[in-house]
Amino acid sequence: MLQEKRVEGLLKKLADMGLEQVLIRDPKLIWYYTEGSYRVNDRATILYISKNNGVKMINNSVHPDQPLGIPFVDHPDGTDVCAEIAKIVDKTKPLGFDAEYPAKWVLPLKNMGACTDLVLASRALDLQLSYKDEKEQQLMREASKMNDRVMAKVRGLIEEGISERELAGKIRQLFLEEKGEGPWVIVAFGESTSEIHHAPSPDIRLKAGDPILIDMGSPLKNYHSDMTRTFFWKSVTDRQRLVYETVLKANREAEKAVRCGMPCEDIDKVARDIITEAGFGQYFGHRLGHYIGIYLHDPGDVNVGNKDTTHPGMCFSIEPGIYLPGEFGVRIEDLVIVQEDGAEILNSDNKELEILGI
Amino acid sequence: MLQEKRVEGLLKKLADMGLEQVLIRDPKLIWYYTEGSYRVNDRATILYISKNNGVKMINNSVHPDQPLGIPFVDHPDGTDVCAEIAKIVDKTKPLGFDAEYPAKWVLPLKNMGACTDLVLASRALDLQLSYKDEKEQQLMREASKMNDRVMAKVRGLIEEGISERELAGKIRQLFLEEKGEGPWVIVAFGESTSEIHHAPSPDIRLKAGDPILIDMGSPLKNYHSDMTRTFFWKSVTDRQRLVYETVLKANREAEKAVRCGMPCEDIDKVARDIITEAGFGQYFGHRLGHYIGIYLHDPGDVNVGNKDTTHPGMCFSIEPGIYLPGEFGVRIEDLVIVQEDGAEILNSDNKELEILGI
Repeated sequence: MLQEKRVEGLLKKLADMGLEQVLIRDPKLIWYYTEGSYRVNDRATILYISKNNGVKMINNSVHPDQPLGIPFVDHPDGTDVCAEIAKIVDKTKPLGFDAEYPAKWVLPLKNMGACTDLVLASRALDLQLSYKDEKEQQLMREASKMNDRVMAKVRGLIEEGISERELAGKIRQLFLEEKGEGPWVIVAFGESTSEIHHAPSPDIRLKAGDPILIDMGSPLKNYHSDMTRTFFWKSVTDRQRLVYETVLKANREAEKAVRCGMPCEDIDKVARDIITEAGFGQYFGHRLGHYIGIYLHDPGDVNVGNKDTTHPGMCFSIEPGIYLPGEFGVRIEDLVIVQEDGAEILNSDNKELEILGI
Repeated sequence: MLQEKRVEGLLKKLADMGLEQVLIRDPKLIWYYTEGSYRVNDRATILYISKNNGVKMINNSVHPDQPLGIPFVDHPDGTDVCAEIAKIVDKTKPLGFDAEYPAKWVLPLKNMGACTDLVLASRALDLQLSYKDEKEQQLMREASKMNDRVMAKVRGLIEEGISERELAGKIRQLFLEEKGEGPWVIVAFGESTSEIHHAPSPDIRLKAGDPILIDMGSPLKNYHSDMTRTFFWKSVTDRQRLVYETVLKANREAEKAVRCGMPCEDIDKVARDIITEAGFGQYFGHRLGHYIGIYLHDPGDVNVGNKDTTHPGMCFSIEPGIYLPGEFGVRIEDLVIVQEDGAEILNSDNKELEILGI
């Protein structure tokens, strides 16, 4: 059913951009505003939200109309989708689009006189998503609790000689048993941990002295989880311990530093300064975190350059890392929700250095 | 590595549209032109193909550069991607975009003066894809042979009382054993077969007298397969037989009718006329087929309104169906490649009416 408060919040944010109407094709956003379930395919299902014309679904009739409390404007296969859009929108106003809205259903509109201007409406759409209501916050907590439960079991799956891919497969299975809706897993052993996004290999097998980096998550009831832990197998060197403790400190201090109304880039700075002071600044080559919710990466980064200020209901990852080329890497990641009094940390899995297999 | 012949073919087709440069974000198209493997995420990897400036990859440095024989122009997290694009493209010319290219990296370009016009380049990109070279045709054959092997085994999995979802799960497993890269399966029993795209249910179990509709496929080495068969369990009524034979005739006659240089809509007409003459015209509510290749649905339909003519190397589905609401439905689908002398049919699985379980 139409989520009227979310639509109302969006229309206010669109007004700040000078927009009164927007087209949304992204199925996750359509779900967010209507609870209608669609998948992207080559047939159109596009949500139209407008201040004056209400909310409508422009829909290929191959997709059955869903009972969402809004009118469906259906068209058959073979219809010119842009012509359908032109019939429905207000030609006398600019028209907004979601970030992922495809070029094929926007660029032809300008020559058809369907609106006065084509405008990227991301700013309003993204901002609305970042205000997670209580129902959404509860779903974020549930998803991260699932992630904690799976990570607890992961320790029992790790054994000498297992390949990265085998372990990743077993972890995905754990998520499926938890009703996770689309688990994804990065497993890296040894030198592979120095890659930020390593693809688990069938040929890399666990051996004594390896660091083990596991970055994983799954949506649950449409909301994402995302956590990284780094373990050590059988032993740890002094250098590995130094890197680990530096990353852990960066993670904890950044989490502690979160306050309402602070620029997001200042949270990044807390972690980055710690890593830089320890001499590893050049080896932390990514943002501290990303917003998360109905997307694994909701639009918005906790990074240098993001001066947007935090507010209650904002949810993001805090995931500092150090990656030493040819050696190893460490990343430690939790999710947090910003509350009036600071960060609510959604993951409770242990973060103290763990040597497994001993 | 850069696929130079494909780039050359594209540049010719772009020239017919008055374009000399295009930006491509779709990972499948990037793979098609470079054999580089990327996934869509919120970080940019965009292929730039230009007549005068050559081929370049605009890439977020979190994604490692790949050895594709082209220069990479990398940018770190936090960069304004549109500003990066503006630095690279020719400002004095119009700029093309692929169909799925997202609004977020196109709409802001116009205010930045990055080009003289923003143009949807689908026409050229789609046309290039429809000319499958010999290597691609061979991969299409391999994928459909896998689909035939799986469908042959499916008959042995069907048993009284199995649920649609259980059967779908077993079929997916068969694809994984065949190294299928992303199997998808529609299984419908009984009245569910009257839905065009039924989601397999855990609660719908096979019983005597049910039709069984199975529409399935998987990419193999990046090329898709797609086939539908409809069986009957234990018995078949005269009405079911009539509908089945009508659909089968439509399928066979349409396949036979394929010639080089004929408008695609004429193939649709052959099947649609047969179904209409049998009195079921209103129950065939979708296109006869869709192009297929690196996408499950390559851009282009075999449908009323598509006057594009067939040419050697074009590959599409032929999938007539009749769906009687509240009763049952039948669909029979093969893939074909257009050759100089007509359709090469990629599926050889039996299409004669089969009553299973007797």
